[in-house]
Amino acid sequence: MATVKLLTDAEVESNPAVKSVFDDIRATRKSDFVNNFWRGLANDPALLKRTWEQLKAVMVADGALEPLVREMIYIAVSTANGCQYCVHSHTAAARAKGMSDAQHGELLAVIGLAAQTNHLVTAMQIPVDAAFDVKS
Amino acid sequence: MATVKLLTDAEVESNPAVKSVFDDIRATRKSDFVNNFWRGLANDPALLKRTWEQLKAVMVADGALEPLVREMIYIAVSTANGCQYCVHSHTAAARAKGMSDAQHGELLAVIGLAAQTNHLVTAMQIPVDAAFDVKS
Amino acid sequence: MATVKLLTDAEVESNPAVKSVFDDIRATRKSDFVNNFWRGLANDPALLKRTWEQLKAVMVADGALEPLVREMIYIAVSTANGCQYCVHSHTAAARAKGMSDAQHGELLAVIGLAAQTNHLVTAMQIPVDAAFDVKS
Amino acid sequence: MATVKLLTDAEVESNPAVKSVFDDIRATRKSDFVNNFWRGLANDPALLKRTWEQLKAVMVADGALEPLVREMIYIAVSTANGCQYCVHSHTAAARAKGMSDAQHGELLAVIGLAAQTNHLVTAMQIPVDAAFDVKS
Amino acid sequence: MATVKLLTDAEVESNPAVKSVFDDIRATRKSDFVNNFWRGLANDPALLKRTWEQLKAVMVADGALEPLVREMIYIAVSTANGCQYCVHSHTAAARAKGMSDAQHGELLAVIGLAAQTNHLVTAMQIPVDAAFDVKS
Amino acid sequence: MATVKLLTDAEVESNPAVKSVFDDIRATRKSDFVNNFWRGLANDPALLKRTWEQLKAVMVADGALEPLVREMIYIAVSTANGCQYCVHSHTAAARAKGMSDAQHGELLAVIGLAAQTNHLVTAMQIPVDAAFDVKS
Repeated sequence: MATVKLLTDAEVESNPAVKSVFDDIRATRKSDFVNNFWRGLANDPALLKRTWEQLKAVMVADGALEPLVREMIYIAVSTANGCQYCVHSHTAAARAKGMSDAQHGELLAVIGLAAQTNHLVTAMQIPVDAAFDVKS
Repeated sequence: MATVKLLTDAEVESNPAVKSVFDDIRATRKSDFVNNFWRGLANDPALLKRTWEQLKAVMVADGALEPLVREMIYIAVSTANGCQYCVHSHTAAARAKGMSDAQHGELLAVIGLAAQTNHLVTAMQIPVDAAFDVKS
Repeated sequence: MATVKLLTDAEVESNPAVKSVFDDIRATRKSDFVNNFWRGLANDPALLKRTWEQLKAVMVADGALEPLVREMIYIAVSTANGCQYCVHSHTAAARAKGMSDAQHGELLAVIGLAAQTNHLVTAMQIPVDAAFDVKS
Repeated sequence: MATVKLLTDAEVESNPAVKSVFDDIRATRKSDFVNNFWRGLANDPALLKRTWEQLKAVMVADGALEPLVREMIYIAVSTANGCQYCVHSHTAAARAKGMSDAQHGELLAVIGLAAQTNHLVTAMQIPVDAAFDVKS
Repeated sequence: MATVKLLTDAEVESNPAVKSVFDDIRATRKSDFVNNFWRGLANDPALLKRTWEQLKAVMVADGALEPLVREMIYIAVSTANGCQYCVHSHTAAARAKGMSDAQHGELLAVIGLAAQTNHLVTAMQIPVDAAFDVKS
Repeated sequence: MATVKLLTDAEVESNPAVKSVFDDIRATRKSDFVNNFWRGLANDPALLKRTWEQLKAVMVADGALEPLVREMIYIAVSTANGCQYCVHSHTAAARAKGMSDAQHGELLAVIGLAAQTNHLVTAMQIPVDAAFDVKS
């Protein structure tokens, strides 16, 4: 159960502002499947459009990081933020972009280790070494 | 100010269990510099040893992910967990491993976008699409 | 499945300390429905009483913020803390207090943007501007 | 110390893409002061521009929620995410938009209570009541 | 720098509602020292009073858990929530209640391990075993 | 639904590296039951082994803290990190180690209070008192 309605394809068709974004999602991904996240966001067409355009700019456009690396970073953040849906959807996306079992295992190992040392550092309140300062 | 003492080199020298780990840190990293995190952990030699051995296995050993990618995942988790020291130390490590300004900018963009959609998903309580299930 | 029993109305009736709080919840809310949160807390009558009295003081009593605004702040915190039950119950409460679709959409937009900039700030470790200091 | 350089006004002037955003920040806020967050983001002009345009759409444009309410929601999320800079900057913004001491006190009380019940709910793993479901 | 004023002893003296709570803090703790947390809360006397009375009931009163165990649980939560001040103040309180170096080391080890497995579980989205259900 | 396969006993039998860890889990716990967490980790035998050995050292070995106290600290961290599975599994473990209803109630009360004051402190940005500094 969600706190918003998830728009059906019929409801999307009847709202031009939403339909335009859904058309772009389908064209960009070369797939008819549009996942529930966008169907929830579609309740607010302006928020839907801003979020999709940002996602295209950050996750789809060419850049300095490989798309698979970006997905693994996304999984890391989603895990630390405890977002179950996001962990599911971006693990599926990473798999679709070729993430191997070995890569997934290492991703998990880094996430787990980072969480552990994050908590150890916070519990000890370790001061930042001067060596880590950015020379501006 | 920390909640534990940060061991000085003299104190490390006088404790063989700690010295042995510090020697390995220095040899592995080919550097005399040992940052404050390890000096805090050194109050508990067993915890120090377990943490360092884990870090060597996860972050230093050869694997399926490039060391720079692992550092960027580490930064992502540390950011979401709000660990200031860890963000500083692993950004410095990523820089030392060649992270460019463009890569750093994209890392930040993915972290920010993931956090945004994590919160949107949680606020809407979006149910996981059946398509994201792992076929076992 | 919960980690505690959820007390039934019959169990509540047989415990005067719990019954007294449940009676007040029903009288205050002018409704017979008591949601699962209170049925779980009822395992510890003292904790139940302290929590309900606090909630009455903070969320029900007259104050400087409208009740709907307080519910939206509650949803914001619950989202960032990843509490699914709380997001559900306080979104329902906000709806009952008149939150419109447009207001809900804006609430989501602010939550999402805040999360994004929170993470960007933490990843960049931005120092606080002197201008933001409170003059005491 | 930050993990990125904070661009000075001179550096902003020499980068047209950054300068254009800074000009708009100053014009929108009717103030010459540009806080450190934007000076850090300016290292990535595309991220700077996307973030500022989003902030204008969400926090500055007319909407269904008063600007002060939006700032208080922002503070709530920033607190739960542990972003010190964001708590400082948005508390200053809320004060500038007229937040009274009484309103600030109630904001704190709601944030604290929500955090408490969030944790109680999670520790008890309370199942969502059917009554909280959205009728779609 | 804080987002609220920290009341001085002179300001406390001039506000009877605040003074009454501060007198009780001093009497209960058998110490004249009142730490900054209470001086910030004192801006809202009702919130100050509710918070202090709760703390007395939960942390000071006799109960089924030793006071030192309660402090260690407090440190664990404060660490996971990234509250620097709270980690400092409750580590000091635990030390004052007799926490040994060995106990502190084990506390850190448990916190770190829990954080690690928390993140591993979330990244793998492990379903709860039926065996963990509470028989109601 | 998980993002990894949960290995069945038959799959475990066919992988010596995994079987060896599962045998030790069963021997250490004197029980045939191996919960889902280990079945997910088993996809990466090295991560499985490191995690189990760490858990044995931290949670099973004799030490300065009673096993039940360690479980309660584990529950506290898992709650603050929002790990539903971990809250379930470690509450079950604490019950098996003798946690009474009264102890569970106090654990919840401390977790809830800590979360509340954590958020109040962060929202007020209270500076650390000099008195809390560790004398090194």
